[in-house]
Order: sequence, then structure tokens, then C-alpha cells
Amino acid sequence: MQPLIAEFMGTFLLMLLGCGVVANVILEGTKGQNSGWIVITTAWAFAVYVGVVVAAPYSGAHLNPAVSIGLAVAGLFSWADVLPYILAQLLGAMAGSSLVWLMHRNHFEITEDKSIKLAVFCTIPAIRNTRYNLLSEIVGTFVLIFAVLFFTDATITSTDTLIGLGSLGAIPVAFTVWGIGLSLGGTTGYAINPARDLGPRIMHAVLPIKDKGKSDWSYSWIPVVGPVIGGTIAALLALLIS
Amino acid sequence: MQPLIAEFMGTFLLMLLGCGVVANVILEGTKGQNSGWIVITTAWAFAVYVGVVVAAPYSGAHLNPAVSIGLAVAGLFSWADVLPYILAQLLGAMAGSSLVWLMHRNHFEITEDKSIKLAVFCTIPAIRNTRYNLLSEIVGTFVLIFAVLFFTDATITSTDTLIGLGSLGAIPVAFTVWGIGLSLGGTTGYAINPARDLGPRIMHAVLPIKDKGKSDWSYSWIPVVGPVIGGTIAALLALLIS
Amino acid sequence: MQPLIAEFMGTFLLMLLGCGVVANVILEGTKGQNSGWIVITTAWAFAVYVGVVVAAPYSGAHLNPAVSIGLAVAGLFSWADVLPYILAQLLGAMAGSSLVWLMHRNHFEITEDKSIKLAVFCTIPAIRNTRYNLLSEIVGTFVLIFAVLFFTDATITSTDTLIGLGSLGAIPVAFTVWGIGLSLGGTTGYAINPARDLGPRIMHAVLPIKDKGKSDWSYSWIPVVGPVIGGTIAALLALLIS
Amino acid sequence: MQPLIAEFMGTFLLMLLGCGVVANVILEGTKGQNSGWIVITTAWAFAVYVGVVVAAPYSGAHLNPAVSIGLAVAGLFSWADVLPYILAQLLGAMAGSSLVWLMHRNHFEITEDKSIKLAVFCTIPAIRNTRYNLLSEIVGTFVLIFAVLFFTDATITSTDTLIGLGSLGAIPVAFTVWGIGLSLGGTTGYAINPARDLGPRIMHAVLPIKDKGKSDWSYSWIPVVGPVIGGTIAALLALLIS
Repeated sequence: MQPLIAEFMGTFLLMLLGCGVVANVILEGTKGQNSGWIVITTAWAFAVYVGVVVAAPYSGAHLNPAVSIGLAVAGLFSWADVLPYILAQLLGAMAGSSLVWLMHRNHFEITEDKSIKLAVFCTIPAIRNTRYNLLSEIVGTFVLIFAVLFFTDATITSTDTLIGLGSLGAIPVAFTVWGIGLSLGGTTGYAINPARDLGPRIMHAVLPIKDKGKSDWSYSWIPVVGPVIGGTIAALLALLIS
Repeated sequence: MQPLIAEFMGTFLLMLLGCGVVANVILEGTKGQNSGWIVITTAWAFAVYVGVVVAAPYSGAHLNPAVSIGLAVAGLFSWADVLPYILAQLLGAMAGSSLVWLMHRNHFEITEDKSIKLAVFCTIPAIRNTRYNLLSEIVGTFVLIFAVLFFTDATITSTDTLIGLGSLGAIPVAFTVWGIGLSLGGTTGYAINPARDLGPRIMHAVLPIKDKGKSDWSYSWIPVVGPVIGGTIAALLALLIS
Repeated sequence: MQPLIAEFMGTFLLMLLGCGVVANVILEGTKGQNSGWIVITTAWAFAVYVGVVVAAPYSGAHLNPAVSIGLAVAGLFSWADVLPYILAQLLGAMAGSSLVWLMHRNHFEITEDKSIKLAVFCTIPAIRNTRYNLLSEIVGTFVLIFAVLFFTDATITSTDTLIGLGSLGAIPVAFTVWGIGLSLGGTTGYAINPARDLGPRIMHAVLPIKDKGKSDWSYSWIPVVGPVIGGTIAALLALLIS
Repeated sequence: MQPLIAEFMGTFLLMLLGCGVVANVILEGTKGQNSGWIVITTAWAFAVYVGVVVAAPYSGAHLNPAVSIGLAVAGLFSWADVLPYILAQLLGAMAGSSLVWLMHRNHFEITEDKSIKLAVFCTIPAIRNTRYNLLSEIVGTFVLIFAVLFFTDATITSTDTLIGLGSLGAIPVAFTVWGIGLSLGGTTGYAINPARDLGPRIMHAVLPIKDKGKSDWSYSWIPVVGPVIGGTIAALLALLIS
């Protein structure tokens, strides 16, 4: 698979499952309605798992502009590839969230609350406060990128021969995202990924969603800028102390 | 183990645990009554895990006609074996769901709602709509088969020697099904497997369940056709882009 | 570690965590009170995980008379060792459940319902019915032993060299028990282990628990006999078809 | 990474995610409010996972004075390194919990109950009783350290060559902590780590938290002394029987 197709497909799967669980938990009439934070965070962990499993051998499975930028800052990814990767991620997120809407169209139709319809697509802070919302996104993304930078492969110890873990190799990032969501997602809903928030927000604005509200553009820069800052700090700190 | 016995036993275990958790969560008087979506989806994930662990070394552990067909479309499985595999899967699903009924017979007896009794066996959409229900089954199965086609084994990197992961090798498909259920199961209950729905539905029609309702045959083609379409699209797309 | 000490310590840890979660979920005033079926089943899975991790290298980590008997039936364990193993398991279960009581003594004191106090120690069926309760224990244990008999180690494929998975090797049995509990535990509370039920029941009868009720001895043979039958059927079937 | 920096960063991440989930579940207005014991315990498991993944290759990832002392008792860690490790762990815990407070500042402001604000930082027993609270911390930590001492690496069986499991190697400790929390955390909230309780308690006393209550210093020795006793018993018992 071409790296950019891998980034697109991986982010598409990530966002199909990610926005999917939000739809399932908050829209009217679904089988998972009101099933709570454990369902949302577990699903996002496995959304990451599926996306990474598919894309990892071909693109490294960034699936997140903050990862691409963080790796570039750490010298582990070419700056020239950052922009194409981000575009593929954004398109994947737009496609994935659009399919979630299409698939749940009947449930969108019986859901009256406009903010719930928006929340299927993008994050809405629990308490709106620029400084602390930004901090939340910085901290959550910092943990993600810092952990990713310290993941290690398996090895045959005596000879230091590397073992590629295959599809089990996506478990560490899934468990890390599970932990971040459960623990640090309560304030802003843990975008921790500019594509995850911006791509679906664009689709919320564009798609013919019945009786939809505004797309909350005034908040939209926080889940873009916060993750980029958090990822950059993580990469710089990793360079400093490793 | 003979491959067809492996498919039968694997699907039997899958459906024993799978229909089992639905019985536990929705029938009257069980210890897990009303324990919610996290219980249902976690259990289906480990139902797949157990079935795949047992069957994988002998049959490849399809346990799902959409997998057999998808692999055949992708050129990874002989078309001549598709029909026998599907029959073994269907029989396994019939046996597993029948045992769930027998084991929970006292709880069936005190449950009045006929649609609950049916739901132990087969899927019922949250909002009945042919187009969108079919789409849901297509999308859920697409994710399953597409992910499965991109699973990779572990390797010793320097020599590219394959490592068989043994029983840990069933983790990726279990985590993928966990994610699909949590995220995409809210609309139709994610059959994503024709045998999973049709086999138990036949048993619902046949078994002497006390005070049972109709078997909802008008819906029955959707969880058969949808998964076959979704699996085929996944296989074709994988061929196209890989 | 001596094998019998390993069986004792493994079963002690299994039952400390296993009875522990029941205490946490059903006694008055605990932090996990009423946290539901997902908490109970997840904890039992990791109770098995911890017990198996500790005991596996020394005794094979049966931790369950039905496993010892099932393996003996399958010709994988010496009949001469069955009785000592069972005694070690029983003593471990008695010690583990006693410590749970001691640790939760304040919570036992403020819990009035006598059946709740009993349920911390041993299983109580949801609907009392000899035939179906026995069937439930047979089926649950069948799945456990059948799966265990088909677990496979990792290998280096080209040379068929075995890889011991270390502490990751306990994951398959933990995930299997997780699935069994979620799916098949709703009728009798899934003893699926004679030591798990009988050992704590003896302690319930013996310990000076304040204001305790009867130990429900009339039911006590079912979670002993059922698992032995289920394990034996699993072993015989595995011999037949493998 | 320097070992002491690794201990600091690992404990910082552990406590950021650990205190984070408590904030998310108990403070007013968060997205995870009242999401229950499964959320708390799952998050602490992955908090440990992330901390251990980052620190393990550099410091062995103790992240807990009871681990450092237990390993020293067992002869697996130099006594001379114990104190510096503990200081790094304590500082990490102070930093992590402080950031949780900063990140959730808006939610602290709308939470009136002072004991909830304290509980984000440190443990509060369900029923205050010196003897049994101490016993709870001893038992929980005993299980942790005893299990850790019996973890085994993967090996190539025929040659007994060790395989380092890379980031998958942190799964056993995460699953063990998951089980301990679910099962043994209901009485005292399972500090099982002196740094986890003392560090944040110091910060609760020091930080300018709006309208805060007392820091409950009379209880503070129990989650310090209990884990040290539990870890020491585990190490001595492991020496005795292994």
C-alpha cells in the first residue's frame, strides 16, 4: 500500500470507529445509548488499534498530524512528508465521520439536540475556557507522543536481534490511548489529534444534516493547536532527556 | 482436527458465548441483567477470541461466511471449500445458540417480552429501515474483513523469519471485533456474520421455546446479504490498493 | 517453587482477587458497591491471570480440580498427582477467601443481608433448579477446559522452534475466563471450579462471621460435580476430534 | 535516559493518568462524571502501563517505593539506590498530581465537597479503621510485589535464549494492577504505593486549591507503611518458597 493511502485508510478506520462510538452512545434510539464513558474510551482505543494495524507496515501509522509533526521534531520523520501525511489524515477523518453520519442517519433524524449532533463529529469542552481547554489538549497529546517515542520493539536479548511484533505491535498505542481517554478526556473530550477534530467539523458544516446547528468554529483552533504544541513539547523533551 | 470440525467447533463456541451474553444481559432474573453495552461487546470479543484460538491451527478460523467469501475473493481461500465451510459454520451457530437456550431455559420461562426471546438468537435493528440497516451491516463487516486482510505475523526482523504467535495470535481479531461492536453495533446489533444471524434464527423457529413470537424472517436477509457485500468490498479494495 | 506450593499460592491469589471483587461489588459501603457485572467478570479474569502467572512455571497452574482431572483424562497429567493438586487448590481457596473476609470485616459488619455475606464466599444460582444449574456449570467448565486443551505456544515457523511466552502466556486463559464469565455466568455465577466454590463455602461455615446465615450445603455439590463432568467431557471430546 | 529521570517521568505519567481518572470520575461537570469503578480501575491499569513502558528500559520502572524496597529485600536491587529512587518517585507523583489539578481547575472550582477535592489527590478509606485499613494496603501491595517477582520473560525454549518483549512487556503489571484495583480496592482505594499517596497529599496541602479542606494527615501513614510492609512480606515469602 502507498504510504498516503495507508494514512488515509488508517485514519478513515480510526474515525469511522471513533465517531461511530460517539454516535452510538449519544444519539437517540441506538443500542448503546447512554452506555457511558467506558464504552466511549474503550472504543476509541480499539479504533486506534484497527487503524494502526492496517497502516503501520506501510506508513508507520501516524494517523494524527501531531504524531507526524512530533516525529519530525524528534528527527524521526522527514519534514517534507509532513504536509502530504496531514492531508491524507484529514481526508481520512472526513470520510470516516461522513460514513458514520450516513450509517446513523435515522438516529440523527430523531435526535433533537443540536449539540449532540455536533458532538458526533467533533469535540466540545465540558467547561469552555480557552486557557484550560488548550492545556488539556496539550497535556493529553504530550502523553500520547511521549509514550509513542519510548515504545520499544521486542528483541532476542543475547544477540539484540529485533523482533517485529506484527499486529500485536499496535497494542501499546491502543492501551496508551485507552488510558489517556479514561483519565484526561473529561475536560475537552480528548481530541489529541488535529485531524480527528477538524476533518469531521468540516463535514458537519458541509453535509446536509437535518436540522443541524452551528459548527462551533470559534473553538476549532484549540484541538488543532493544542495537540501540535503537546506533540512538539513531547518530542523536544524526549530529545533532551534520552 | 479436521478443518470442517474446527469450523463447527469454533463457531459453536463463538455462538455459545455470543448468544450467551445476550441472554445474560436481556433475559429476566440473570446475574448480568441490564449490565449494558460494555458487557455485550466485551463478551462478543472474547467469544471470537475463544472460537479463533481453538479453530485457527486447523481451519484458519473463519467462523463466518463473510470471511470465507472475502478470503476467496482475495484469492486466499479456495472457492471449492467455501460452501462446506459455510455449512459447518451454520451448524456450529445452530448448536451454540440452542445450548444457550437450553442453559437459560428457566430465564426464558419468566421472560414475557417475545422480542427479547428472539433477540437472544438473532439481531433486531434499532430503527427498521432496509437501506440503512443494510448499510450498517456492510460497513461493520467491511471493517472486520479489511482489518483481517491486513493483519501481519510477528517476524525476526533481520532474517524475515516468521514467528507464529500461538494463542496470542487471536488477539487482533478479538480487539477488532470489540471495536466494531462498541462503535458500529448501535444500529443493527452488528451481525457482521451471516451464520451468526441465520443459524440461531432457524433455531428460534424450530425449538420449542415457550410462548415465543415470530422469527422476523422479513429482516433475515439483511444480516446475510449485508456481510457478504461488505466482505466482498473489503477484499476487492484490499486487492486494489495493496 | 514446589508444584504443590505453586498450586496453593496460585489458587490463593485467584481466590483472594476473585472473592475480593464480589466483596467489593456487593457488600455495603465499599468503593465498588453496585459497580456491576463488568467489574465482577473483569476482575475474575485478572484473578486467573495473576494466579496463572505465578504458578505456571512450577505447577502448570491448574488452580482448579476440573483442570487437573480434565488434563488427566486427556493423558496430559499423571493421575497420581491429581489428589495432591486438588488438596493444594482447596487449601489455597480457603486461605484466599478467608483473607477477603478479614480484609472486608468492617463491611461485613454493616451488611445485613445474609445471602450477600454467603455470596462473597460461594456461588448461589439465580434460579434454583438442579438440572439447569448443573447444566450451566457443565457448559461453562466445558468451554474453559476445551479451550485450554487447544491453546498453542508461539513458534519460530521455519524451524518449528517453540517460544515460551513468559508472563504473556497467561493472557489466553484470562481472556477465556473473561468471556465465560460475561456470557455464561448469568445463571449460576460460574463456579466452573470445584475448589473455588467448596473451599470458601467451608470457610463460610467455619469462620466467626458476624450474624451469618446457613452455608447452603444442599447446593454445594453442583459446583463440584458440574465442573468435573464438564471438564471430563471437554477432555474426551478433545481426544476424539484432535 | 538517566534512571532517576526515568523514575521521575514514569511516576509523573502514572500519577497524571491516575489522579486524572479520579478527577474525571468524581469532580463536577466532567465528561466522565460518575462513570464508576470500572473506569477508575481500568485507567489506573493503563496509567501503570504507560509509566512502565516509558521507564522500564532505563530504570526497571519501579515507580513505587514498595517495589524498590521489595526488590532490595529480595536481593534484586541495590539498597544504595533505594532512597534516590524513592525521591524521584515522590517528585514524579507530586508533579503529576499537580498537573491534574491545573488541568481540571475549572472543575475544582465548581465542586463544593471538600472530601472530593482531597480524593483527587490521595486515598480516603471507605470505613476508617486503622487495623483493617492497614491490612488492606498490606494485602493489595503483597499481591502486586509477589506477582512482579514471579513475572517471567519470553524465551526460545530449545536454547533458553531470552526474548525481551519490548512494550508488550508492561502488560503483565498492568493486568495485575487492574485486578488488584477491581478486587482489593474497595476498602481503602488501593494506594499500594507510598509515593502515589504521599506525593499528591503534600501537593494538596501546598497548592492554592480554592476552598480546600484539610489534607487528612492522620491517615497519611497508612498508605505509606502498609505498602512497605506488604512489599517486604512478598519479597521474604518469595525468597522462602522459590
